Amino acid sequence: MTASGERPHVVIVGGGFAGLWTTRALASAPVRITLVDRGNHHLFQPLLYQVATAGLSAPDIAAPLRQILRRQKNVEVRMATVSRIDTDAKTVELDSETGRQSIGFDVLLLASGATHAYFGNDHWARHAPGLKTLDDALDLRRKLLLAFERAESESDPDERDAWLSFAIVGGGPTGVELAGTLAEIARHTLQGEFRNIDPARARVRLVEAGPRVLSSFPDDLSARAQRQLEKLGVEVLTGTPVDDITAEGFQLGERFVRARTVVWAAGVSASPLAECLGVPLDRAGRVPVEPDLSVPGHPDIFVAGDLATLKQANGKPVPGVAPAAKQMGRHVANAIRARLAGSKVAPFRYRDYGNLATIGRMAAVVDLGKWTFSGIVAWWFWLLAHLFFLIGFRNRSVVLLNWSVAYWTHQRAARIILGGDDRSDTK
Amino acid sequence: MTASGERPHVVIVGGGFAGLWTTRALASAPVRITLVDRGNHHLFQPLLYQVATAGLSAPDIAAPLRQILRRQKNVEVRMATVSRIDTDAKTVELDSETGRQSIGFDVLLLASGATHAYFGNDHWARHAPGLKTLDDALDLRRKLLLAFERAESESDPDERDAWLSFAIVGGGPTGVELAGTLAEIARHTLQGEFRNIDPARARVRLVEAGPRVLSSFPDDLSARAQRQLEKLGVEVLTGTPVDDITAEGFQLGERFVRARTVVWAAGVSASPLAECLGVPLDRAGRVPVEPDLSVPGHPDIFVAGDLATLKQANGKPVPGVAPAAKQMGRHVANAIRARLAGSKVAPFRYRDYGNLATIGRMAAVVDLGKWTFSGIVAWWFWLLAHLFFLIGFRNRSVVLLNWSVAYWTHQRAARIILGGDDRSDTK
Repeated sequence: MTASGERPHVVIVGGGFAGLWTTRALASAPVRITLVDRGNHHLFQPLLYQVATAGLSAPDIAAPLRQILRRQKNVEVRMATVSRIDTDAKTVELDSETGRQSIGFDVLLLASGATHAYFGNDHWARHAPGLKTLDDALDLRRKLLLAFERAESESDPDERDAWLSFAIVGGGPTGVELAGTLAEIARHTLQGEFRNIDPARARVRLVEAGPRVLSSFPDDLSARAQRQLEKLGVEVLTGTPVDDITAEGFQLGERFVRARTVVWAAGVSASPLAECLGVPLDRAGRVPVEPDLSVPGHPDIFVAGDLATLKQANGKPVPGVAPAAKQMGRHVANAIRARLAGSKVAPFRYRDYGNLATIGRMAAVVDLGKWTFSGIVAWWFWLLAHLFFLIGFRNRSVVLLNWSVAYWTHQRAARIILGGDDRSDTK
Repeated sequence: MTASGERPHVVIVGGGFAGLWTTRALASAPVRITLVDRGNHHLFQPLLYQVATAGLSAPDIAAPLRQILRRQKNVEVRMATVSRIDTDAKTVELDSETGRQSIGFDVLLLASGATHAYFGNDHWARHAPGLKTLDDALDLRRKLLLAFERAESESDPDERDAWLSFAIVGGGPTGVELAGTLAEIARHTLQGEFRNIDPARARVRLVEAGPRVLSSFPDDLSARAQRQLEKLGVEVLTGTPVDDITAEGFQLGERFVRARTVVWAAGVSASPLAECLGVPLDRAGRVPVEPDLSVPGHPDIFVAGDLATLKQANGKPVPGVAPAAKQMGRHVANAIRARLAGSKVAPFRYRDYGNLATIGRMAAVVDLGKWTFSGIVAWWFWLLAHLFFLIGFRNRSVVLLNWSVAYWTHQRAARIILGGDDRSDTK
């Protein structure tokens, strides 16, 4: 794998589930690893909506990559942005504030994930932010909490209603979680805190272009999820593609709905880094990979996680979920070990242990293939599974504590507005 | 107090210790209260340095004002900036994103606190940020953590040393806390996490213009604090006023010290709002108040907390500390109640229960007047006192949990870099 006598150099781009799981699975392998991420932390993305809805604080669901990997001596962590990949020279270019640097690789794993996509309507981004990073989550938290503040200080009744009108575009797991939690905040968390508005009058709409919410679940679970959402106070609109989004609201065909706060949970596209590979990408910008997760024509370059697309034996693509990313990560590590040993790895096979989505307080849906269930039992299942998979004893304890307090009091731990342009004088 | 039959309107500007304690002490008083703050939260400022040094997350030391006051029905909370005060017309002008609004008051309490002051060198602010708000703390956290990242990716040895050179300007409690904690982070928390630098080689300098650190404490406690700082690895420079601060470092007389990270903990000045009152201010911009904490010539306007200055019977000014602000807050409430009842309030008297400052892991100094102590016992005293005074069961539990984990592992809970300009593509 490498001409020199040195250990082969594995460069891993992205410290998400795929990249981190590959890194950890190579702990005892005879390689040097450089793990590059533009942030300093691994993020437990499945709970990101909780940071956005003020249930958790940012450090509760993240851990510094250096800390996670401190004992793994064959890894060097680099906080930098990858600006270019040269597949012929086998180099990647790192940009950081101390300059630009080119590093060579023997094996490359590209696992830089996905960002939100507006399907050619990038000007919607300003009015309908999405949720992919901790910074996105804090911005969204700020936007949601400020909407109630603005409604409270607004004297014009129409403007007030517009501030109390929220829409989540996209009925996938993130959209459902956000809508359900936001309805709970309006109905319960903020109860009694305002003098000029009744936060419970806030309208939370979940707008889905397709015929049903949670389309990756069986039909009956979608229907149950919709009923649970409606019970929490969410208005679910299905079969209604959004035609335009402005600062004032959104357009559904002939109808314009006023809503000062619109959140985008409708689409993702792969990280633009994939374009550096010079191979054909799918419509969402993902890299169609070989069964061993390598890039066609580039056996030393792997792609895993949300950036990769691969058909399973049943014809369906491997879903863009955390367990799939972890499995892919481990598989890439096996492929690298196998190649070092001169052998071959079996094709990647996604093991589907089930699919779960939370909807709001004591409401969730779980699809374990043979069994499906919803409601309180599903919610407890969701909660325990997420606690279990969080990295770090401290994070688990803090999240458990926050959730326990939230369960009994309806309060949310992190209703603190941070950042923004309000740094003026009264305080 | 009011001509109409309505309950008198008390406007309180600032939801810090002074403003919030006045508000709560008026819970059963026959008044209408409007509490104005530019943020949405009350902040437990004594632990702000812990957020800056990644020991706690922002929501751990803050609570939404609306939540704290939800049951107090005579209060309306307004998130807005006060742009003007008309003492004759008895109005304050509120700026919020929904517009500008003028509200009248019968009684006004100005408790908008202090901001950092650079003694006429405002251009230092860019290179040496201060610490007053949660946003300041998150900016500082980012700056401190990024310095180590930059040192790690820097190949030039001089530049690397400059990134590993830190200075805290100002040897008061905040400066001492920051310096001690930063030394601990460099020596212990980050141990083993970098491959190109040894974080323990970082130099942390505490630069004090006066002859000793913690000048509000007795001489021998200052000396003990300095010894504890030095034991933690801090270089303490006293009698060394800073003559200039640039992006590269700072000037002490003839000597220029390279340091890419300089933090300002040297001076505060009162909130500029005080100027609206049209009365003479002291050098730090504070309002010299009457013994009942009202403004000279304006019996219906009170000033409390860091914005007020008042001499005690012993000739010393009331110190700008949290207990003094709370006591002033309660006193203003008593003065308002007394005036409603047609009686008079006794002059404000500050009860000094002691003075404590923490230095770092298991190091602190406590001055209870009769008794002084330092070291581990003082540190435990400091820790329990701060836990006790935090608002909210959840905050106390989370802080206790974080501190317990930190105590055993040297780890810090919130080493997550947020915000800034790094939102590019690798992740």
